[in-house]
Amino acid sequence: MSMKNDVAQLCKRVKCASRELALLDTKAKNDLLVNMAYALMKNTAYILKENSKDIKYAKRNGLSAALIDRLVLSSGRIKVMADSLVRIAELKDPVGQIIETVNRPNGLIIKKVRVPIGVILIIYESRPNVTSDCIGLCLKSGNSVILRGGSEAVHSNAAIHGVMIKEAIKKGLSRDTFSMITDTDRRVVNELLVQEGLIDLVMPRGGESLIREVAKRSRIPVIKHYKGVCHTYVDESADLEMAEEICLNAKVQRPGVCNAMETMLVHRKVAGVFLKSMIERFRKAGVEIRGCPQTKKIVKDVVAAKEDDWYTEYLDLILSVKVVRDIDEAIGHIMKYGSYHSDAIVAEDKKAAAKFLNEVDSACVYVNASTRFTDGGEFGKGAEIGISTDKIHARGPMGLEELTSYKYVVYGNGQIRK
Amino acid sequence: MSMKNDVAQLCKRVKCASRELALLDTKAKNDLLVNMAYALMKNTAYILKENSKDIKYAKRNGLSAALIDRLVLSSGRIKVMADSLVRIAELKDPVGQIIETVNRPNGLIIKKVRVPIGVILIIYESRPNVTSDCIGLCLKSGNSVILRGGSEAVHSNAAIHGVMIKEAIKKGLSRDTFSMITDTDRRVVNELLVQEGLIDLVMPRGGESLIREVAKRSRIPVIKHYKGVCHTYVDESADLEMAEEICLNAKVQRPGVCNAMETMLVHRKVAGVFLKSMIERFRKAGVEIRGCPQTKKIVKDVVAAKEDDWYTEYLDLILSVKVVRDIDEAIGHIMKYGSYHSDAIVAEDKKAAAKFLNEVDSACVYVNASTRFTDGGEFGKGAEIGISTDKIHARGPMGLEELTSYKYVVYGNGQIRK
Repeated sequence: MSMKNDVAQLCKRVKCASRELALLDTKAKNDLLVNMAYALMKNTAYILKENSKDIKYAKRNGLSAALIDRLVLSSGRIKVMADSLVRIAELKDPVGQIIETVNRPNGLIIKKVRVPIGVILIIYESRPNVTSDCIGLCLKSGNSVILRGGSEAVHSNAAIHGVMIKEAIKKGLSRDTFSMITDTDRRVVNELLVQEGLIDLVMPRGGESLIREVAKRSRIPVIKHYKGVCHTYVDESADLEMAEEICLNAKVQRPGVCNAMETMLVHRKVAGVFLKSMIERFRKAGVEIRGCPQTKKIVKDVVAAKEDDWYTEYLDLILSVKVVRDIDEAIGHIMKYGSYHSDAIVAEDKKAAAKFLNEVDSACVYVNASTRFTDGGEFGKGAEIGISTDKIHARGPMGLEELTSYKYVVYGNGQIRK
Repeated sequence: MSMKNDVAQLCKRVKCASRELALLDTKAKNDLLVNMAYALMKNTAYILKENSKDIKYAKRNGLSAALIDRLVLSSGRIKVMADSLVRIAELKDPVGQIIETVNRPNGLIIKKVRVPIGVILIIYESRPNVTSDCIGLCLKSGNSVILRGGSEAVHSNAAIHGVMIKEAIKKGLSRDTFSMITDTDRRVVNELLVQEGLIDLVMPRGGESLIREVAKRSRIPVIKHYKGVCHTYVDESADLEMAEEICLNAKVQRPGVCNAMETMLVHRKVAGVFLKSMIERFRKAGVEIRGCPQTKKIVKDVVAAKEDDWYTEYLDLILSVKVVRDIDEAIGHIMKYGSYHSDAIVAEDKKAAAKFLNEVDSACVYVNASTRFTDGGEFGKGAEIGISTDKIHARGPMGLEELTSYKYVVYGNGQIRK
């Protein structure tokens, strides 16, 4: 009862604060972003001390080396976080932008104007830099934010948040503008997810099970992607050397992220030549191959892919490989097993490329490039708050613009409806 | 078990059909819209016969005259439905439109391209014209639709749908492209609302309780407005004659709709003069006034407004009236009691108007015009599929563009990520 009440009271205060923030002008927001960047640099020692508590706890609890690596901060990593805030200050302010003006025959002038969404709840795991990125992006787009990071990073997150909110308060903003939940009780999250009307949007960032749990419980709109089962299809018309470079990059450059390739599809007409050389390169890079029966015929000692493999986001040096009859089978496979995140075709035939780009209904579709480019920075958005595979509001990498809504502002001189 | 299975199977077929529809070119869609319009006209007698069954049933069940009026079709009303389809054919096709092109330093060309959302579920009550409007708008925007109308209009809806789907089939589309659920079992709706991944968006249209029930149960994104508690604020700087015309129009021109005014706020400096004349006009028009204590001091025999009145969408010839200290109190009242649908200020002072338009965070904000203009047609969208007070994807009247999503199409020539 008291916990429920506390959550509702917090959300009301954040909603109030969001209204003040929405009216802040661009210069004030940019100044604050730069001040926050300086403050992170100045408080490096303090942040690292708090971070070391999380690391110590993680080691005691036997977290994997990969997870600990994501958790560890250094003065270099803190500098990157600060730089990111300065970069956000340099981006164009989306708030107040006029998207469209319609002049009606009756003299009404209707303007579609970008406005902040309001209050955004971000539920995330591990990486502490998400804390500063989210505060920075939400500040610039005029949104209040409620942050709920993972328990494994609670000291690091609280330190980063504490340093940044101090700067906001100095500039006259309310302490509630950017709020952090440090209570690790799961019921607090469940209570947040029913604050419809006070929280406007929820963005879960983390593993698939976290995201599914949030999507299932939330009464507030959720924007998300569950996973990235990304494909590269090597067409019969492909430049096979280019295809090798693209596929190698998509799989091994950073296998643990959502835009890495998980399945490679190869047209049967080029499979014989291509797979022999390609799989050798993959093996040299330490990639385990799980292949369809035809793949196994072409290359020896390939593990047989099971039905489940085609659905799997390995996030690791593992790749499933399938030889397909034609482009239609490739597209069909992607539609059936994919996660509609990022999929690529390598092809010289413009018709085949156009067909693929048109028919594959993923957030990002590529011709002759690596799926690894699905990223706010690489798309020219400066920074990203997440990637969406949903069909409404925003798809693909989400930057400042995707953190806004719009309203219609209508100017009249006495018009009434007949 | 079998019902669950039937619903899932239907949704899978509709999803499949939606992929075919998404690829249909503009001419084919426009031709089909015109054919559907002709078919409705040609089948007027049949549709009216089916409609009479619903009317007979409604009368036997003692439905109110207002509800029966919404249900009744005539050859005139069928003509309006047909005309609406022709108008949709004349609107610009949003699908394939390039929203933005970004040229990256590494040579990647990133195009943000409008695409259909996919499968839309529309749950609605009474008015049978919603059936043809929704099929028309979804067809033009390339979306498949699952329609679930109210049991009171089941014969009318089935007849309209039947006539239209026959034309779609003649053009080679699947029967599932535009599907209608005639099973009135509530559990069918509940089962539809968990078909995440097959249905992309739910739009409930009807009374507040229907919409709340859908929003509560749905695992699929919902776009909606619960109600329209719309305000008009008469500023101290208002042209009082203009204010009278606007307020009268906003309340009485069509009181039963969501963009009608429910509360009038008046600056204390003009309340004495304005309210005497205004309330007299309202009374002549049959409007019951529920006023704050100050209103009661100015005009005799005004019913005292209770706290609940300020939250109420009367949808009737009732108006709550409050005298406010200043514009800040007016804005504060709207933010506290409003539903963020449509709110207006009447003011000659440009600063006051700008403050109101900026600070009132409703989907549509007006200066010197009636809130009754919140409507797809009046906004120049040709038609509307609904009105949203949500903060994500779409706000205000929703037309064809709001029925689309986008995808990023990326053109490379071998780019890999460093």
